[in-house]
Amino acid sequence: MSTRIPVGVLGATGMVGQEFVNFLQSHPWFDLTWLGASDRSAGKPYREATSWRLGGEIPAYVRDILVSDSKPEGAPQLVFSAMDASVATEIEQAFAASGRTIVSNSRNHRMDSDVPLLVPEINPEHLNLLPEQQKRRGWKGQIVTNPNCSTIVLVMALAPLKKYGIRRVIVSTMQAISGAGYPGVASMDINANVIPFIGNEEEKMEQETQKILGDFKDTAVTDLPAKVSAHCNRVAVVNGHTLTVSVEFDKTPSEGEILGALRGWRGLPQQKGLPSAPPCPVIYMSEKDRPQPRRDVERENGMAVFVGRLRECSVLDYKFVALGHNTVRGAAGAAVLNAELMKEEGWLDDVLG
Amino acid sequence: MSTRIPVGVLGATGMVGQEFVNFLQSHPWFDLTWLGASDRSAGKPYREATSWRLGGEIPAYVRDILVSDSKPEGAPQLVFSAMDASVATEIEQAFAASGRTIVSNSRNHRMDSDVPLLVPEINPEHLNLLPEQQKRRGWKGQIVTNPNCSTIVLVMALAPLKKYGIRRVIVSTMQAISGAGYPGVASMDINANVIPFIGNEEEKMEQETQKILGDFKDTAVTDLPAKVSAHCNRVAVVNGHTLTVSVEFDKTPSEGEILGALRGWRGLPQQKGLPSAPPCPVIYMSEKDRPQPRRDVERENGMAVFVGRLRECSVLDYKFVALGHNTVRGAAGAAVLNAELMKEEGWLDDVLG
Amino acid sequence: MSTRIPVGVLGATGMVGQEFVNFLQSHPWFDLTWLGASDRSAGKPYREATSWRLGGEIPAYVRDILVSDSKPEGAPQLVFSAMDASVATEIEQAFAASGRTIVSNSRNHRMDSDVPLLVPEINPEHLNLLPEQQKRRGWKGQIVTNPNCSTIVLVMALAPLKKYGIRRVIVSTMQAISGAGYPGVASMDINANVIPFIGNEEEKMEQETQKILGDFKDTAVTDLPAKVSAHCNRVAVVNGHTLTVSVEFDKTPSEGEILGALRGWRGLPQQKGLPSAPPCPVIYMSEKDRPQPRRDVERENGMAVFVGRLRECSVLDYKFVALGHNTVRGAAGAAVLNAELMKEEGWLDDVLG
Amino acid sequence: MSTRIPVGVLGATGMVGQEFVNFLQSHPWFDLTWLGASDRSAGKPYREATSWRLGGEIPAYVRDILVSDSKPEGAPQLVFSAMDASVATEIEQAFAASGRTIVSNSRNHRMDSDVPLLVPEINPEHLNLLPEQQKRRGWKGQIVTNPNCSTIVLVMALAPLKKYGIRRVIVSTMQAISGAGYPGVASMDINANVIPFIGNEEEKMEQETQKILGDFKDTAVTDLPAKVSAHCNRVAVVNGHTLTVSVEFDKTPSEGEILGALRGWRGLPQQKGLPSAPPCPVIYMSEKDRPQPRRDVERENGMAVFVGRLRECSVLDYKFVALGHNTVRGAAGAAVLNAELMKEEGWLDDVLG
Repeated sequence: MSTRIPVGVLGATGMVGQEFVNFLQSHPWFDLTWLGASDRSAGKPYREATSWRLGGEIPAYVRDILVSDSKPEGAPQLVFSAMDASVATEIEQAFAASGRTIVSNSRNHRMDSDVPLLVPEINPEHLNLLPEQQKRRGWKGQIVTNPNCSTIVLVMALAPLKKYGIRRVIVSTMQAISGAGYPGVASMDINANVIPFIGNEEEKMEQETQKILGDFKDTAVTDLPAKVSAHCNRVAVVNGHTLTVSVEFDKTPSEGEILGALRGWRGLPQQKGLPSAPPCPVIYMSEKDRPQPRRDVERENGMAVFVGRLRECSVLDYKFVALGHNTVRGAAGAAVLNAELMKEEGWLDDVLG
Repeated sequence: MSTRIPVGVLGATGMVGQEFVNFLQSHPWFDLTWLGASDRSAGKPYREATSWRLGGEIPAYVRDILVSDSKPEGAPQLVFSAMDASVATEIEQAFAASGRTIVSNSRNHRMDSDVPLLVPEINPEHLNLLPEQQKRRGWKGQIVTNPNCSTIVLVMALAPLKKYGIRRVIVSTMQAISGAGYPGVASMDINANVIPFIGNEEEKMEQETQKILGDFKDTAVTDLPAKVSAHCNRVAVVNGHTLTVSVEFDKTPSEGEILGALRGWRGLPQQKGLPSAPPCPVIYMSEKDRPQPRRDVERENGMAVFVGRLRECSVLDYKFVALGHNTVRGAAGAAVLNAELMKEEGWLDDVLG
Repeated sequence: MSTRIPVGVLGATGMVGQEFVNFLQSHPWFDLTWLGASDRSAGKPYREATSWRLGGEIPAYVRDILVSDSKPEGAPQLVFSAMDASVATEIEQAFAASGRTIVSNSRNHRMDSDVPLLVPEINPEHLNLLPEQQKRRGWKGQIVTNPNCSTIVLVMALAPLKKYGIRRVIVSTMQAISGAGYPGVASMDINANVIPFIGNEEEKMEQETQKILGDFKDTAVTDLPAKVSAHCNRVAVVNGHTLTVSVEFDKTPSEGEILGALRGWRGLPQQKGLPSAPPCPVIYMSEKDRPQPRRDVERENGMAVFVGRLRECSVLDYKFVALGHNTVRGAAGAAVLNAELMKEEGWLDDVLG
Repeated sequence: MSTRIPVGVLGATGMVGQEFVNFLQSHPWFDLTWLGASDRSAGKPYREATSWRLGGEIPAYVRDILVSDSKPEGAPQLVFSAMDASVATEIEQAFAASGRTIVSNSRNHRMDSDVPLLVPEINPEHLNLLPEQQKRRGWKGQIVTNPNCSTIVLVMALAPLKKYGIRRVIVSTMQAISGAGYPGVASMDINANVIPFIGNEEEKMEQETQKILGDFKDTAVTDLPAKVSAHCNRVAVVNGHTLTVSVEFDKTPSEGEILGALRGWRGLPQQKGLPSAPPCPVIYMSEKDRPQPRRDVERENGMAVFVGRLRECSVLDYKFVALGHNTVRGAAGAAVLNAELMKEEGWLDDVLG
């Protein structure tokens, strides 16, 4: 990897955009040199265009970059999208049409049948949707997406168990406030409270899980025929979505087999040594009361999913707890890992020339 | 009800004891005149023996009562027990042997086959275990218990649906810190965090639910043969346990039938107009994001259970959210309502003479 | 008080407006029959026009009232204003010009020299500004205001000590999130955090305190010549502003004199027995770690101010802690008590005919 | 620095002990090889003797170290003390008598006239108390202490301004729960609450500040004759004590002079490049609402103090906000920096041979 690759971020002034700025700092392959935002911000240095909501101060390397408007002209070939769903569809498509590769965290194209909903450890073969996508849409570029921030925690915990035939899953979430962006959840709503509802989140978890764990064949992905039922709740946690999961299998494994599958699971990112790949994508914790969001979510740079409390379920087969970092593995980090895999596997060769 | 009934509280200086003191203030039938605690507190006025942890100040009516040691001599005939489980077994039994009626919030005797685990709206006929209890144990008195603070929320939401044949239940809880007493949960453990484990709580929910919803016949209660699987979690909420519930029925009702069953449900406490009975034991909220603990738990004096978000479950039949006040309906209020029912139904006639 | 007085609330759909709705429920003198809001809400029943943010559900007595637009026509003679400061000035003036009495919680007119900044226990004589106000502005009606929600806590604790000559005050606040309305403070800003800044709050505390404690003479109020310096902070508390206060006097009293002054303080509301007046406007708590917002703020219907930890200050003379309910005594309750005093003292006679 | 120095930690299983374990991980000079605790833990591997309360898991480098009892035999020459104050006095003295250097975070010896209360940037010359200490007490070893976790934040912000003659200071704190150790503050006390009292904390801040900023002359430290008055409060923050400070000077500087003094301040640790020294010990933030504990406290490895909101005070001269990491700069990190300075300045030469 001798030359560094210039990259951009669409929606750079929002909270997910800021997460990209943080995550790409000191990236060994990618140089963040282009920041796209709304017309209102365009032309201003990033330090003036953005209200920095994350910890510390705006990283020095982006402070003086002039924000561009959200048009492909002048943008690099590889662009991450952190755009709000209300505007993402058309802009992302314009970039793809112009030849750019859009690696998007927005939900807009996730469920399109010709758009990979990519988790590099789980379904790298879904990238084979891209030729079909380009052909069907007449694009020179391409769009790849990553899952919703609660879905990712579930699928990372389930993927190693897919071989046992996942039949039914009931999941109840306790999701961090950072999942709603900024200003996001009003403190009057969540302080010392639980909100047992997150708009469209249950549908996303149920549908995305089936697609991510589905099989690619010929030119399409066939959904995993598992039934997934989600209860989504917001709790007063800053970062980290915690899930309680009950799962039923076709061929019920032993507890030892599950532990072995979780602990031994490695994917392409680990085999290829991708820069943002966690050494172990799933970490099983044997303490009786872990994982916990405040204590565990920042470990492994936020890129691993933590599982604990595996035990038998008297209704389905097994139950356990899973935790993942919603703004890292569930947003910026997920997209960057997607781009790393695409680079490594040659999907950016045309784009980058 | 011409004469008032003197009552006592065992474990009066602890946090549940304080809840009894609060709840019995201005009770129309019961006069709290006796406060039992450990030898260390005995002989002191209550205001000195206790560190008041609830809001406001120690209610005036108990400030100067001299605390008694935990022996039946001098205690009234009707005694509520708020004792810690580590000491409750022997003391409660000594009181029962002496002829007292113990209405206990402790877990120690809940699962004994001859002890009613009473929820007045649900299983008043379980009180018929008492003659068997007295006979078998040679007691002149008796012990009645109320459920665990998370169980009560579940069974109140399920009881109106029992007629449809409850077959399987998966429940995930988000429980308030007050459920753990004082000092209870360390702030370093729960601030901006979730603890996905509460010792023995899942077992209690699974077993108590079967007993409470079971049928009394001849001299025993037969457990409801439903399978219940619980995930118990602690969250940073002061009062109110929130549950997400998925349930499967033998004869699946329509959504309208469930709503009708929940809203129309009334029990003996409502029919008899018991002083602490909520007019509607289950209140269904149609807002999309309710019930919420901070906003709803204090309504109806904390004695109702709130249900919302009823919808189909793709794995079991239906799913919903339930909320109840863990220290009122789940502790002191539950026990007082139990005693009110016992009085109304004549189970205290011998005792009170 | 044989006939009830119809009253209205301007800004009725906002959070302070909702506080008025709650507070006026079952008021013995005032009938809330008119709810004013923006054109967007006008014509809808209140239950549809408002998103209820307080606990429980919208009180039944206002659910079906049709919301009016913010014009005097059709409004009652006595109108409370909970309007946002961005729009309050002109609307309140139009109501006053039309002959209405506006009892406002908005900050807009507080510092006008001819507008009473009224705290009934402290400065009822400031109402004598009203004839001057009517004359100068050519109004048939009138405007009266109550202080900012942090100022009120300070002045209630200082007023009983005014006789000792308040010379200098340093106050540092820890203010509840409800003080910022809805959506107000983003949870991403305040969860497990402190925000050491509240826009314009320090200036309000410093200036309003001088006016409230000032003396009325002839046709004007002369500010108290005390120096006040405020540090204002937001903390993760739902209701209740907590203040640490250091104060210096001209004639330094003894600790006993201060305690006596605080505990013995009564004002006109107490002497007249106004419906919303707390029996003791200041309650001194002798526990070493009180008052505390979550435990004390709801006592006395939120209308008293709680003081504790009086001790010598090595820099000024004394220091102490004070706590008050920012949305009750600091907003809706304050305004209602103002109106009660005005009624009692005859300031509404012309208006109400 | 060719050879590494073996060090120990007394009180290693407590929460401050765990902070030392975390902080000393990968230290360039010191090898943590000895962990002392109570008899109950002695002989067990650290992983079994301790309940790890910090984030993540017990660092691998200490997992298998066998815990020693709290006696000097076998301990290294340089020992950090994280002992609880209830037992620290005698044990620390026994270690000093045996020839060990104790660098202590406990409060027990801080105010002893012959014990340095050391802040390396502020008063390195206070180490000259040590010969007097050894002579007076007949010790071969020595004891050095660091300040209380709230004092350190204040003195770091004041020290650069000492040249203007600090005359009077009023400080109000909002302190994190981690400052109280584990289990420390009960969640029932602090959730959605403020506790306006911390035992002995105000006295410590007032007295320690005078000693730390005092001058060493001949064989003693003369306290700074400034008056300091503290209000100490606990808030629901995990890490980071936030202070509001008003200060009066003999020679009142301009705002620009203060900013220059804060920003330009460097001490011996910076000049010598000590491993744990922050490049700038005080960082001034110009944003209007910073510093904030959750967003800023982890910056600079927790070793800097953050100041903001400098403005005139109408009672004293200036007021500002200060923030520091209570368990790093206020505990483990402070002690390690103390030891680094002692090593650099030759105070450990005898000890280490």
